[in-house]
Amino acid sequence: MIEELVIKSGTKILLIVLDGVGGVPVNGKTELESARTPNLDNLAKESITGVTDPISPGITPGSGPAHLSLFGYDPIKYQIGRGVLEALGVGVDLGANDVAVRGNFATVDDNGIVIDRRAGRISTEENKKICNKLQIRQIEDVKIELVPGKEHRFVLVLRGEGGVQPQLDERVTETDPQRTGVPPNRCEPLVTEATKTANIVNLFVERAQPLLSLPANMVLFRGFAKPPKIPSMQERFKLTPCAITTYPMYKGLAKLVGMEILGSGSTIEDEIKTLEVNWQKYDFFYFHIKRIDSLGEDGNFEAKVNEIETIDRYIPRFIRLNPDVLVITGDHSTPSKLRAHSWHPNPFLLYSKWTIPDKTIRFTEQECMTGGLGRFNAIYALPLMLAHALKLNKFGA
Amino acid sequence: MIEELVIKSGTKILLIVLDGVGGVPVNGKTELESARTPNLDNLAKESITGVTDPISPGITPGSGPAHLSLFGYDPIKYQIGRGVLEALGVGVDLGANDVAVRGNFATVDDNGIVIDRRAGRISTEENKKICNKLQIRQIEDVKIELVPGKEHRFVLVLRGEGGVQPQLDERVTETDPQRTGVPPNRCEPLVTEATKTANIVNLFVERAQPLLSLPANMVLFRGFAKPPKIPSMQERFKLTPCAITTYPMYKGLAKLVGMEILGSGSTIEDEIKTLEVNWQKYDFFYFHIKRIDSLGEDGNFEAKVNEIETIDRYIPRFIRLNPDVLVITGDHSTPSKLRAHSWHPNPFLLYSKWTIPDKTIRFTEQECMTGGLGRFNAIYALPLMLAHALKLNKFGA
Repeated sequence: MIEELVIKSGTKILLIVLDGVGGVPVNGKTELESARTPNLDNLAKESITGVTDPISPGITPGSGPAHLSLFGYDPIKYQIGRGVLEALGVGVDLGANDVAVRGNFATVDDNGIVIDRRAGRISTEENKKICNKLQIRQIEDVKIELVPGKEHRFVLVLRGEGGVQPQLDERVTETDPQRTGVPPNRCEPLVTEATKTANIVNLFVERAQPLLSLPANMVLFRGFAKPPKIPSMQERFKLTPCAITTYPMYKGLAKLVGMEILGSGSTIEDEIKTLEVNWQKYDFFYFHIKRIDSLGEDGNFEAKVNEIETIDRYIPRFIRLNPDVLVITGDHSTPSKLRAHSWHPNPFLLYSKWTIPDKTIRFTEQECMTGGLGRFNAIYALPLMLAHALKLNKFGA
Repeated sequence: MIEELVIKSGTKILLIVLDGVGGVPVNGKTELESARTPNLDNLAKESITGVTDPISPGITPGSGPAHLSLFGYDPIKYQIGRGVLEALGVGVDLGANDVAVRGNFATVDDNGIVIDRRAGRISTEENKKICNKLQIRQIEDVKIELVPGKEHRFVLVLRGEGGVQPQLDERVTETDPQRTGVPPNRCEPLVTEATKTANIVNLFVERAQPLLSLPANMVLFRGFAKPPKIPSMQERFKLTPCAITTYPMYKGLAKLVGMEILGSGSTIEDEIKTLEVNWQKYDFFYFHIKRIDSLGEDGNFEAKVNEIETIDRYIPRFIRLNPDVLVITGDHSTPSKLRAHSWHPNPFLLYSKWTIPDKTIRFTEQECMTGGLGRFNAIYALPLMLAHALKLNKFGA
């Protein structure tokens, strides 16, 4: 419905995603509650706040669905296969007809039985060397790309693009048996249209084996996937969106929904400079700050607190740009105490001259829980941003 | 599901809709926050409150869908075409087989090219005179009705009722080209069943033209519609509902869901007398107060505040009737600052001996945001009213 209501206008929306910012208390306080955040506090006083469920109450999201939801896409409807997410994570561009799959380097014994599914977790350096050795660039009419990931992980991309447009199909079985003591599975088509794809995969394994040696003398595949067909934010919301993020996977996610990817630095200072320089050119800015999430996954409460305080010092820079709508939220929570993504709702703050400010005085989990936006599904974040930017016509007369 | 649970009983529900009551702050306070409302405040203290989204977060509703939602009807499922709403707005009764369409008086040049889609916004008086001149009462077996609206607007109704029951169908193209510099479009059927309707429309235009003169020498049509097929509140909720409202469109909306329309006055005092006189005869009362919305659309903050204070003085009259359930809410917000309907959730108050009162001490946007009902979709307003009136059996054993 929203597609029929949206209008193009000059107002600007800035969505700042503090990756994994939410936490749970340690000694009575969460990371946000422990941090000194005078700028966020002031902003909270002038804003309306709430908490969001990325998927639904109790569900812990991966980064893919959590972001899709914030971008206004139903994460249940648009599911991103593992192969695609891994490809995005290593910075591979995927065409609509490409099939990507996650690979593991593994160890098999003389009888071809898998004895280590991760080849002793070889180093990332070793992984790169092996990928360099595996010069298999084409099988039949299908172009092949092999991209090393971390430790024993890599991504295999079968290109469905090019002069001949080979017809690839992701509906094939996995070769990774997911346990040791058995041989790898052959790749089998689940539908006849996928026969060719399965053949290519099996041929790849055959040709790769002579080029491999212990401990990484086998490859295992799981999660064959094509990129989901997602209508762009331009089409759906008449936005001219861009993304400022330092990590490949988020660049890939942003690209999936049609955002232009800006900047090449690695620090918040780099990112904010990119934002300032490009402020006139777009009307939707996805600004991603990653490091808090990594610190949460490390279980490093103190470092996460410090990073939040660092971010707080940048808040005036964002406000100086005078966005018509400024949203600050997380994609998911990453409590240091849990060392992982969690299901806890994300604190959410919306600042605009069209809000009714609530009584919230800090940007913390507990404060936002009683905020004026209440608890809502993150899928409504984008409609709320569009509304406060006066980019939506009314529904019905 | 609710239809299977509902039971007929003698308890009485009074739904007071303060049209467009919600606002956004001007100098730190909304209209409700600025008004002195001792009676509403006392009521809020004894009630449970919350805020409602008429459609979904961020969506600004027209009056039609906003009211349907409050009456317990999914406004996405039951969409009311523009022609029907316009007809309701000028007080025309529509039968199930009638087709209504919005008309504009327009100006065309000697070559038949539209040069002004609104005929210079002729006066409402002039409009009435033209409609009087256009004595086209029947074409073939279809009875025709022409009802003047404001300025250049009118409503054309093709009657599908009567002895012969002509088969009319709204699936035809619009004649309004929606821009100048081109001739009006012919009305074309989009499905074969609509061939007759398209012919009647084209014949109407042909016959009208010789009766028209500059500047209003053409008619343009858009928004052909039949009334939606809506099961009545009697059928769905076993209610005996009535409506007390002073504006045609709201009478029409109420009639669409089966309400009996009461009263003929124009002031709140007239309305409340109608309510008092008819209190014994019904079990669901839709009581509509319109003027606050108009003042919001005018951008008249002070007058909207004063009108809210006036309404407040009537609150004891409502309470004296001792309704089993009293709800006070808006259909949508109309902030004076925005001079238009908005997406902001509506403050909602439910008073009944079966509520759990919350900590709310005033009937304002900010207070209701933290009310015990939380933020909810307005479609749940009716089930909540039925429940607190003990009109719902339990679901399952």
